[in-house]
Amino acid sequence: MSGLGIGLIGTGYMGKCHALAWNSVASVFGDVARPRLVTLAEVNADLASKKAAELGFAQSTGNWQDLLSEPEIDVISVTTPNAFHPEMAIAALEAGKHVWCEKPMAPALQDAIRMRDAAKKSGRAAVMGYNYIQNPMIRHIRRLIDEGAIGSVNHVRVEMDEDFMADPETPFYWKSEITSGYGALDDFAVHPLSLLFKLFGHVESVVTDMVKPYPTRPLKDGGDREVENHDIASVLMKLEGGISAVLMANRSAWGRKGRIAVQIFGSQGSILYDQERMNEFQLYQASGRPEEQGFRTILAAPHHKPYDRFIPAPGHGLGFNDLKIIECRELIAAIGGQKAHVIDFEEGLKIERSVHAMARAFAEKRWVSVA
Amino acid sequence: MSGLGIGLIGTGYMGKCHALAWNSVASVFGDVARPRLVTLAEVNADLASKKAAELGFAQSTGNWQDLLSEPEIDVISVTTPNAFHPEMAIAALEAGKHVWCEKPMAPALQDAIRMRDAAKKSGRAAVMGYNYIQNPMIRHIRRLIDEGAIGSVNHVRVEMDEDFMADPETPFYWKSEITSGYGALDDFAVHPLSLLFKLFGHVESVVTDMVKPYPTRPLKDGGDREVENHDIASVLMKLEGGISAVLMANRSAWGRKGRIAVQIFGSQGSILYDQERMNEFQLYQASGRPEEQGFRTILAAPHHKPYDRFIPAPGHGLGFNDLKIIECRELIAAIGGQKAHVIDFEEGLKIERSVHAMARAFAEKRWVSVA
Amino acid sequence: MSGLGIGLIGTGYMGKCHALAWNSVASVFGDVARPRLVTLAEVNADLASKKAAELGFAQSTGNWQDLLSEPEIDVISVTTPNAFHPEMAIAALEAGKHVWCEKPMAPALQDAIRMRDAAKKSGRAAVMGYNYIQNPMIRHIRRLIDEGAIGSVNHVRVEMDEDFMADPETPFYWKSEITSGYGALDDFAVHPLSLLFKLFGHVESVVTDMVKPYPTRPLKDGGDREVENHDIASVLMKLEGGISAVLMANRSAWGRKGRIAVQIFGSQGSILYDQERMNEFQLYQASGRPEEQGFRTILAAPHHKPYDRFIPAPGHGLGFNDLKIIECRELIAAIGGQKAHVIDFEEGLKIERSVHAMARAFAEKRWVSVA
Amino acid sequence: MSGLGIGLIGTGYMGKCHALAWNSVASVFGDVARPRLVTLAEVNADLASKKAAELGFAQSTGNWQDLLSEPEIDVISVTTPNAFHPEMAIAALEAGKHVWCEKPMAPALQDAIRMRDAAKKSGRAAVMGYNYIQNPMIRHIRRLIDEGAIGSVNHVRVEMDEDFMADPETPFYWKSEITSGYGALDDFAVHPLSLLFKLFGHVESVVTDMVKPYPTRPLKDGGDREVENHDIASVLMKLEGGISAVLMANRSAWGRKGRIAVQIFGSQGSILYDQERMNEFQLYQASGRPEEQGFRTILAAPHHKPYDRFIPAPGHGLGFNDLKIIECRELIAAIGGQKAHVIDFEEGLKIERSVHAMARAFAEKRWVSVA
Repeated sequence: MSGLGIGLIGTGYMGKCHALAWNSVASVFGDVARPRLVTLAEVNADLASKKAAELGFAQSTGNWQDLLSEPEIDVISVTTPNAFHPEMAIAALEAGKHVWCEKPMAPALQDAIRMRDAAKKSGRAAVMGYNYIQNPMIRHIRRLIDEGAIGSVNHVRVEMDEDFMADPETPFYWKSEITSGYGALDDFAVHPLSLLFKLFGHVESVVTDMVKPYPTRPLKDGGDREVENHDIASVLMKLEGGISAVLMANRSAWGRKGRIAVQIFGSQGSILYDQERMNEFQLYQASGRPEEQGFRTILAAPHHKPYDRFIPAPGHGLGFNDLKIIECRELIAAIGGQKAHVIDFEEGLKIERSVHAMARAFAEKRWVSVA
Repeated sequence: MSGLGIGLIGTGYMGKCHALAWNSVASVFGDVARPRLVTLAEVNADLASKKAAELGFAQSTGNWQDLLSEPEIDVISVTTPNAFHPEMAIAALEAGKHVWCEKPMAPALQDAIRMRDAAKKSGRAAVMGYNYIQNPMIRHIRRLIDEGAIGSVNHVRVEMDEDFMADPETPFYWKSEITSGYGALDDFAVHPLSLLFKLFGHVESVVTDMVKPYPTRPLKDGGDREVENHDIASVLMKLEGGISAVLMANRSAWGRKGRIAVQIFGSQGSILYDQERMNEFQLYQASGRPEEQGFRTILAAPHHKPYDRFIPAPGHGLGFNDLKIIECRELIAAIGGQKAHVIDFEEGLKIERSVHAMARAFAEKRWVSVA
Repeated sequence: MSGLGIGLIGTGYMGKCHALAWNSVASVFGDVARPRLVTLAEVNADLASKKAAELGFAQSTGNWQDLLSEPEIDVISVTTPNAFHPEMAIAALEAGKHVWCEKPMAPALQDAIRMRDAAKKSGRAAVMGYNYIQNPMIRHIRRLIDEGAIGSVNHVRVEMDEDFMADPETPFYWKSEITSGYGALDDFAVHPLSLLFKLFGHVESVVTDMVKPYPTRPLKDGGDREVENHDIASVLMKLEGGISAVLMANRSAWGRKGRIAVQIFGSQGSILYDQERMNEFQLYQASGRPEEQGFRTILAAPHHKPYDRFIPAPGHGLGFNDLKIIECRELIAAIGGQKAHVIDFEEGLKIERSVHAMARAFAEKRWVSVA
Repeated sequence: MSGLGIGLIGTGYMGKCHALAWNSVASVFGDVARPRLVTLAEVNADLASKKAAELGFAQSTGNWQDLLSEPEIDVISVTTPNAFHPEMAIAALEAGKHVWCEKPMAPALQDAIRMRDAAKKSGRAAVMGYNYIQNPMIRHIRRLIDEGAIGSVNHVRVEMDEDFMADPETPFYWKSEITSGYGALDDFAVHPLSLLFKLFGHVESVVTDMVKPYPTRPLKDGGDREVENHDIASVLMKLEGGISAVLMANRSAWGRKGRIAVQIFGSQGSILYDQERMNEFQLYQASGRPEEQGFRTILAAPHHKPYDRFIPAPGHGLGFNDLKIIECRELIAAIGGQKAHVIDFEEGLKIERSVHAMARAFAEKRWVSVA
């Protein structure tokens, strides 16, 4: 049986990550045909050729549209800057390709809607790159919640913090332009939202505060430029089923490197998780003798599927790139028509609607319902 | 030189804590005259007599008003349930006594205002029992902020969580009555607010969400009763000077026992603190070689005044009760007319105004300015 | 009922700690008569007088022997440098006083034996100041072990590390003289030994390595002086009942401030403890569903007696000085002829014998049995 | 340029890990020719064929010796049980292949010597699978030590603990047979030794204690069988340059899953590391203002080479399998005649000599020099 034929557009952070995943998924899981790395597209032919050699693609092109007509290609990974997602993803779907698109869908909600519509019409798998939901720890947390291990959930807090915008001396660049998005909200908050969606369901209403820690940033050639979006966002939310949630995102949080901290409170216990220590989570259950109750630190282990496909021993640790391999396996399931643990364009659109509602709540200084 | 004469009303959790502080403050600090434990008041003469023997008071009474006319008494500790604070504190001040009153001031804002007015008129020291601000770690954090160790602060998050209301099977009791207050907000959030006030200044505007995790609670004799206030509160806030803050309080947070977690983000670093590990804090400074930057866990030590008055060796740890001894020493300074690190009735009132504004913001589902 | 009459010799680190404990024990526990702080002895009358005022003693003296003939005194706290312990403790016992003596007993084993003999002959309570065993966490750990919560214990590791000798530039002082003891071994290792004794029983045989991280130290007036003892000691041990143990002590361990880390491994679970976070311990039990097994962090709470005598709420934290108050309460029990959780001179002598055996094992480069 | 041709013997835990590494090394590093996965050998042709398909090898065989004569193969990965290492590794070297052999070399020292001799004679790269030394955190720690960041190192402690032998009900299997080795010592302690060798140099003398926590184990078919080796080992050591070290290994340590805890004490600071949280380490430097000194938790980041080849963002985390990819890259360097950060057969032999000396020290109850 021949494996899926792969096309890849973009070889930055996420492009390489997709390539690694396509390259390893068969060896790790041992239950899918080895994908064929067909064509890699980059902004010019030279770079494309160089990267194809590095990443193991058979062909390369400086024109991404070449992938659309390549019959060997079944799936296209779209890993370009956000503004390009709509055009590429829609073209790929219309060409009959399955699509694996990095998050978020698009800066403009209308474009995200068009993407969702194209996916629906195509009948192809259209999956977003929300890899944190693939962490075996997160998947086990979901199982615990479903089993009632902490009773009925009533309150959730999620924080996503990094510090790549923390230095006020970092010169102005495109991330501070409003055309790139609202700032922390869509650059960042979409990841915690993906977790909330998978664990609890959709967002119903929100009120938001946003902050510019540095109103201006220096220009490289001297002078300053006004920052156009917000590096810090804080949101009070009501989720499906009446759960109250607080979402906090800060991309200028000195010292935080990849923090996605989740606190889940239920009627019989609590769960804590932090992506910076992605191979563990903490569980408190209000059972047994009170004098020995406490948060239990649970290390990733083969029990927590599909950790076992990577390593047969507990406590040895997966890495960030491994999450993409799991996502890749789920995408293959989706392509095969099986039930898959992914965020497809339909659900991705709901995340984007939430983000836009948050921004509106800030602009209008009021609670806003997510349509 | 004869020490201050002390009267104590109430011998519950905080009453005992005050008694221990009055009893130890001279030995610990070695720079104040030993207070004389004059009279202890309780709800009846028998209990008062028993507790006076235990706690080392010379006299006892079942009538707290006896303390007002006792010439040997200079200061009265008010540690009764919140509803009694206004009457007792005002009477004590009018009798020319200094007052040390447990937080919060009063359930009703009007009563808190009357207390503040009585204090102003009396010219006596009138100090609230906000002991967390006395932690040498918190005091050192303030010093670091003042020195600019983390640059200009732009964002703060504070969480206060315990689990004494977490069990849905806990029978209805007075803490769930609206007459006792809004719930987590005034029962709890006042502590984090005391920290915010001492570290950053006052609250300017707020928007609030509150939740009842359990709409009803069982009655001891069967049946259920509707819960009248909210065990969970989340607040977005603007502080003086434009700092954005998020305040979260949850008294039904399974597994949290005495958590007051503070995250402070500045332009050159960050500070983390958690009362459950009250003898340490974490400092990140964006200086030095990037590859060795990280959060530093700093253990309490004699450098962090007045830890040195308790223990000459670092890392050995103060306890919760020790904070009250420090507060007591500051109160003595205030009585002596010296600059003291306390929350007096004036500042206490500002905290209560903030709480009432938060409750109004919830009721009216909108941003509210703190008058 | 009149309380015990107290004499105190020494007002350094431990002297003040004893004074605070005598002063607070009645208020905290509420079940013992309030001790009377009778006479304080220091090296001269002026210092004694000053300290007596600070610490609340009625009388003072520059001659410690005055305490022996003072009929009001029932108990004498001995908190002077180790070399003075034998003379003072024996004199006090011979004068019919109970004795509370700081650890260790004496630099020379023969003196420790004389102290034990004097205690036996006197029939008085003779208790060593090993306060770490009083931590409610340690007492609960012992209860768990006794209950079989982690099955049969087979292996233990204990580390005691501080950094007060870590700086090679610290000038030579008496702690580096051989007359002060072996170094880390008796200055330090006696504390972890006290824990091992209370948790598991006596030491049977040992082999030791010791290290001088800095062979010389600068003299204050120029030049260097050879260091005569060892700041680092590591010991392999067999305990009663066949448990294997490793004891490590390092008083030049940069960054460690008051670390006493204990790891206990049993056939059905493990327990971890670290004095630097003295209000928590960790318990792993190999029961329940494997995918949720993990170390549970258990915070100090009223369940863990006698924490409840200090604070009625969980997670609020005791301090180092509070341990001495508990030790004081146990001493009072011992004086009253009740079963007490203390290390008396008999057991203290066994600890000292273990230390001397360790030193011999190092000198002779071989395994040595503890007589 | 054509990449190296690879042969793989064995597809268990480590076999799959090698296969994943060979498959990903070119994509991750982008600076080596893509290896060609030529032939996979397993115990029979069916299994070999199945695994070759899964892991991406072009050919398969049930006879490992087929690899020796395959001209396409340049390197052979030996990942079979330890007893097979000598025969296979020596045959491969004699056939002119480079060898990548899992640790340890061989149960018997004589075999390890033969392997070293064969490597020397062959002139081929002969590298052991000690992947923990490849962790960018460990490599950065070494750099810090070399730079003098913590001054002169004087004391080290290393613990390696897992719990796969912790359950006394686990039936007897080959790991408890003496033919499989001494137990914790060679099954385990070789990993911490590899770290010590890379960080500090060789072991000079040792004294050892070993324990059987469970003298017998149940047989599957009823009855018991005596355990022949020791699940717990503790060793005092002198390293090159006079550093004292303690090595502890416990494969029946409930709750420990992949712990390799390293504590390094120097004259100007300390470093802590734990493999269970492999993406961080802690650094204490005795510099700057004392009141802010503390252990800094440093998260893995692109600064820590070659983390950057995997992920361009800090704090996102490598996994255990990624260490093998780094090891693979180093092996390719060694094959190319470049300086490589590996443990070759020469250094591997020194590790094994240390282990055998430790076992002798235990058997003879005395300090033993490592020849």
